[in-house]
Amino acid sequence: MRVGVDVGGTTVKVGFIDNYEIVDRLVVETKSETLFSDVCREIKEYANKKNYKIDGMGFGLPGHVVGTFIDKLPNVGIEDLELSTIVSKYFPDLKIYCTNDANAAALGELLADSNKKASAYMITLGTGVGGGLVIDGKVRDGDHSNCGEIGHMFIDYVHNYKCTCGLNGCLETVASATGIVRLAKQYYDKFETKIKIDKCSAKSVIDAAKEGDPLGLYVLDIVSDALGRAISVIELAVDVDTFYIGGGVSNAGDILINKINEYYKKYAHFAVKNINIKKAKLGNDAGMLGAAYLW
Amino acid sequence: MRVGVDVGGTTVKVGFIDNYEIVDRLVVETKSETLFSDVCREIKEYANKKNYKIDGMGFGLPGHVVGTFIDKLPNVGIEDLELSTIVSKYFPDLKIYCTNDANAAALGELLADSNKKASAYMITLGTGVGGGLVIDGKVRDGDHSNCGEIGHMFIDYVHNYKCTCGLNGCLETVASATGIVRLAKQYYDKFETKIKIDKCSAKSVIDAAKEGDPLGLYVLDIVSDALGRAISVIELAVDVDTFYIGGGVSNAGDILINKINEYYKKYAHFAVKNINIKKAKLGNDAGMLGAAYLW
Repeated sequence: MRVGVDVGGTTVKVGFIDNYEIVDRLVVETKSETLFSDVCREIKEYANKKNYKIDGMGFGLPGHVVGTFIDKLPNVGIEDLELSTIVSKYFPDLKIYCTNDANAAALGELLADSNKKASAYMITLGTGVGGGLVIDGKVRDGDHSNCGEIGHMFIDYVHNYKCTCGLNGCLETVASATGIVRLAKQYYDKFETKIKIDKCSAKSVIDAAKEGDPLGLYVLDIVSDALGRAISVIELAVDVDTFYIGGGVSNAGDILINKINEYYKKYAHFAVKNINIKKAKLGNDAGMLGAAYLW
Repeated sequence: MRVGVDVGGTTVKVGFIDNYEIVDRLVVETKSETLFSDVCREIKEYANKKNYKIDGMGFGLPGHVVGTFIDKLPNVGIEDLELSTIVSKYFPDLKIYCTNDANAAALGELLADSNKKASAYMITLGTGVGGGLVIDGKVRDGDHSNCGEIGHMFIDYVHNYKCTCGLNGCLETVASATGIVRLAKQYYDKFETKIKIDKCSAKSVIDAAKEGDPLGLYVLDIVSDALGRAISVIELAVDVDTFYIGGGVSNAGDILINKINEYYKKYAHFAVKNINIKKAKLGNDAGMLGAAYLW
């Protein structure tokens, strides 16, 4: 049995996986200091109780990881940690594998969706914008473990907002939850809207758009334009057949996915007009599943 | 012995390759109708004469290729051709491999330069702008055999010139030989220059820039800015450690490469500021060498 571990900001999700199916699961509350020890101990106890034989363990981690060395997980408060030294205390001979959470999710979506040796890009729209690349069924971490950091692609030259990374016009300055709120505030005066701007959230803007609110629709249009453009650029660089759109903002659903497809077709090179851009379907399970197939 | 075949618009270059060295070579003049038969016959005769035992043959082709099927080679006038049917008449049991010429060149440069299992991007600046991606020592053709068509990335929103592909603002509208001439004409009135605008070529603009001509320098600055920006975007999508700049325009040399590096650093995400952007060094030999290591 394979174990896939998806480390998040508040909980750690553990999947026990057999033949691409999550057959059992555990949730462990996170606490920085002892996080990985706690997770390993709970996995070990649970596996013993259930008589699960674990063949390998993979981790999807929210930050920068090089091999099994954790460089930095900003939202978890952990850095400079060789993960294998902790895991080996509980599972002495077990092989472990790590990647960042967007890469793990990309692989998970691909495994659940299609040809397991295919290539795909995952774009996660959350507080920021992340991405993960799978080539021929294998996650690409990249030469600097930075592959998929597409939130910082220069895309929006119109607003050219300053990004937290120090650059301007990054994709995530408009296409993230933060970006959606920023855009709603910028265009608030231009539309008749039901959106309450003082307690505006990405969800409230998306919900308003779904009900036809003009400001909500206008913001979603800018977001989709930026994503369609970004996908047209990524596609020329790597040429994959499928893009999965995940993360909280993707809950906007069809209204968002359809608009992204529309803008993609507008900006796409003629040879690659017909690719698949679709909503990620596994949601929170993608990271666990993908993490379990890093090897 | 491996054979690498680089098919160009006017000649076909054939390399006989042993342990990553081109130990012998042939040049065959191209003629659309009989091109591949001619090439195979000449290779066979020459190999027989020299007692070369050929283990496999790879082709770098200037156009769209899917597996060993040639979809279209626009500058050669060949389309819809299953290459293996022709090769097998001369070499009945020989395995053949194909990719586009930029991919073959990318692999050739990588093999000549560094770790043979590394990843790299090649950018060729010629009449248009092409690109090739190698991941872990393996050429990536892409799911639609369109990987590396980075000449059509949206980059130059300032001039936003119309591209031959139908889109606007494509990288190659400014960063190709054609783009350089276009820019020189656009800014001709703004500078004191020695460039003769009625018989202006990319080479004359580059040569003028090397001598400090203000118009030449201004144009090269726009070209470098666009390339620095494009590399910053590609890098986030695939994260490779090295970009090779090849093609005729790259003969501008240090003045171009240094400026591209400068703009790259300006636009790059902080985690990948320190990558290698360098001039391709094999020139016309890269395609042959790379083609011979597609398998």
